[in-house]
Amino acid sequence: MEFSSRIIEQAVNEFSRFPGIGKKTSLRLVLHLVKQNEQDIRGLSASILALKEKLKFCKECGNVADEDICLICKDTRRDRSLLCLVEDMRDVMALENTSQYRGIYHILGGLISPMDGIGPEELNIESIEKRIKEHDVKEVIIALSATMEGDTTAFYLSRRFKSLGVKVSSLSRGIAIGGELEYADEITLGRSIAARVPFE
Amino acid sequence: MEFSSRIIEQAVNEFSRFPGIGKKTSLRLVLHLVKQNEQDIRGLSASILALKEKLKFCKECGNVADEDICLICKDTRRDRSLLCLVEDMRDVMALENTSQYRGIYHILGGLISPMDGIGPEELNIESIEKRIKEHDVKEVIIALSATMEGDTTAFYLSRRFKSLGVKVSSLSRGIAIGGELEYADEITLGRSIAARVPFE
Repeated sequence: MEFSSRIIEQAVNEFSRFPGIGKKTSLRLVLHLVKQNEQDIRGLSASILALKEKLKFCKECGNVADEDICLICKDTRRDRSLLCLVEDMRDVMALENTSQYRGIYHILGGLISPMDGIGPEELNIESIEKRIKEHDVKEVIIALSATMEGDTTAFYLSRRFKSLGVKVSSLSRGIAIGGELEYADEITLGRSIAARVPFE
Repeated sequence: MEFSSRIIEQAVNEFSRFPGIGKKTSLRLVLHLVKQNEQDIRGLSASILALKEKLKFCKECGNVADEDICLICKDTRRDRSLLCLVEDMRDVMALENTSQYRGIYHILGGLISPMDGIGPEELNIESIEKRIKEHDVKEVIIALSATMEGDTTAFYLSRRFKSLGVKVSSLSRGIAIGGELEYADEITLGRSIAARVPFE
């Protein structure tokens, strides 16, 4: 693509480094910015810089935070006896959006994956065990993806945490709400009939 | 969506102001940035600011430029007797990508649209006429979209420019290259049989 301006070219190259954004989308975004007023441009630029200059990681749970402790860990109304283990910060946001969970979180930062050379020692599990003991956690909810790596990690962690005498649970698996039976994949469907639940 | 950090929330809000980017995509872009190094973040931030602080508009053609005259108007190898009229800067880039045109451009900045209250007087046509006379332009190529507004504007402009004694042409219309006949819309197909061209 040829540009009439190096400034535009530079900006298009910067935007096309985002995942899933190609040159055409990037150009659309840049031309949108060209039309914005100075205040909006400065606001965007400042909030991008803040991601590097001001953003911290919570010393308790490992989530992104404005200070040393994140807003969730700080919130005194949350149930500290419930600890939910997730892979990354996106999972925290997804669970928070459900408004169904009032406990605290811990971010694992990865999954056990022998193929990629990631073993249990890479996941800093000692810090989770320390947190479970110190905060008198009653239940650990393992909320990992339903993939081979997620299941392997969940199995390993459940064994370790059970030895601490804490209750360990996992997200329920089965047909998605609103999902039609005929479109469910056979593994999910097979598991959901094997793990059927009685009507209350 | 709830965030554990106001900095993240701020950045997500800024990115979701882009056209076609919702909260989820915006979050994905922001979390991508969180993982980048400081140099990349500064580069992105600086090139966004440059769009407002350094970008100019070419005094000749109205395209975006780094200086008073854009790179295309400055290029002495281009044929100044050919002037291509387009709606906006994206059209210039699209035409430049074809590598089939070596003339110069003029950016109209809009189309005649009585529905939106845009008449010929809003389009600064005098400056184009002045340019045609001063630069001894031999042919004006009207390259506007094949919409009602585009066609109306093209018809109006062709009448005005013809009175200056200059040749006026438009982009050819018809079946897209690689397009299958059965999927072409009937208006395009109808026009392309009416405007059929003899084999050379």
